[in-house]
Amino acid sequence: MNLFYTTDINNQEIILHDQEAQHCAKVLRKTIGAEVHVADGKGHLYRTEIKEIKRNAVVLNRLSTEVKPSEAHLPHLAFGLIKNTTRLEWLLEKVTEIGVSRITPILCQRSEKRRIKKERLDKILVGAMKQSLHFYLPQLDEPIKMSDFLVDDLRSTRFIASFGEGVPELSKTYQGGIPSVILIGPEGDFTQEELAIAVANDFQRVNMGKSRLRAETAAMVACTILNQ
Amino acid sequence: MNLFYTTDINNQEIILHDQEAQHCAKVLRKTIGAEVHVADGKGHLYRTEIKEIKRNAVVLNRLSTEVKPSEAHLPHLAFGLIKNTTRLEWLLEKVTEIGVSRITPILCQRSEKRRIKKERLDKILVGAMKQSLHFYLPQLDEPIKMSDFLVDDLRSTRFIASFGEGVPELSKTYQGGIPSVILIGPEGDFTQEELAIAVANDFQRVNMGKSRLRAETAAMVACTILNQ
Repeated sequence: MNLFYTTDINNQEIILHDQEAQHCAKVLRKTIGAEVHVADGKGHLYRTEIKEIKRNAVVLNRLSTEVKPSEAHLPHLAFGLIKNTTRLEWLLEKVTEIGVSRITPILCQRSEKRRIKKERLDKILVGAMKQSLHFYLPQLDEPIKMSDFLVDDLRSTRFIASFGEGVPELSKTYQGGIPSVILIGPEGDFTQEELAIAVANDFQRVNMGKSRLRAETAAMVACTILNQ
Repeated sequence: MNLFYTTDINNQEIILHDQEAQHCAKVLRKTIGAEVHVADGKGHLYRTEIKEIKRNAVVLNRLSTEVKPSEAHLPHLAFGLIKNTTRLEWLLEKVTEIGVSRITPILCQRSEKRRIKKERLDKILVGAMKQSLHFYLPQLDEPIKMSDFLVDDLRSTRFIASFGEGVPELSKTYQGGIPSVILIGPEGDFTQEELAIAVANDFQRVNMGKSRLRAETAAMVACTILNQ
């Protein structure tokens, strides 16, 4: 199933814009009357047909609406902001495919980068959501300081990734089925101070197994385990 | 720990070449007498010190040798060869970090690509092996036809990824601790014929959860689950 994305939805009329419109009309060469499936990233799947094709938009007629089961139970991923843009974008694409409900980039003591291009990253999330047939777009937050994050209104099942001896494995610790938040360190990992503050805020130290994983790999592995 | 890689090992003398030598002498600016840790990808960790720095080589004196526990129990990943080089390289990097013992690219009916640049890909495996503190370099095979692969001398715990209704989840099916082989489809997935032949060769159909994953994501998720 090809899935399109838009938030421009009014009663009967749904409009695809820009890339989504191009993909529908130019790449897939769909014509008036063709059936098109549309997601709004908020759990709705619309069955529509093409009513009109404009230069930069495709106007659709809504035929039916399906409400998909909530994905709010999927893990909340927080991670020390990654400097390398390619690796950051991979991380976002992959965890969205695997399944997350919320993504928070954290400014850690060892984070070198301070900002994200949210509009560009949101497009990556939309692509991955459609690819993987999720119907809820993960909430991507603006980067926030670790100290502000730790006092945020977080879930009660809290993990912090920590590679080292004597730390239990996430897969052995996580009970399954419980909404959780996992915090992954930046390149160079958390400082001892950051780890201690997280633990004081009820984050439980866990590792992802015996391998020393890159930040983006650890995030993907954690989301995989928390989706079991 | 910074880990270097070479296979040029003779009694007392160990020699780093090319990139490894450059990284040691130019990037990290290590000098004569400095301690250097070296892996040979066959389970040996050598503690050495620098004896001589040449233009394209660093000559090391072996101080001690440690033999690391075997990694032969790690999963054997076979996957329909991926067309996009970036995604292929990313797959190899990530599964090596997570842990695999052998990687076999498979020529499926829907594989568009027929060859790999083995030398380049082996370098990626070396980088990921060092990063993740594995001491065994996964065996990377040349691409082979699916029909030849299925009659190869394979492990008895065999899975084939298959997205769909009624297929059990790998994480619920895999018992853990048993060496296994997992077969992941190419972009566009296996044909029904390929699936049927695999099943006839004792491959058990499993899915990676509810998401429809890209080929490289499915490979990474499968290796994560098989490492638990």
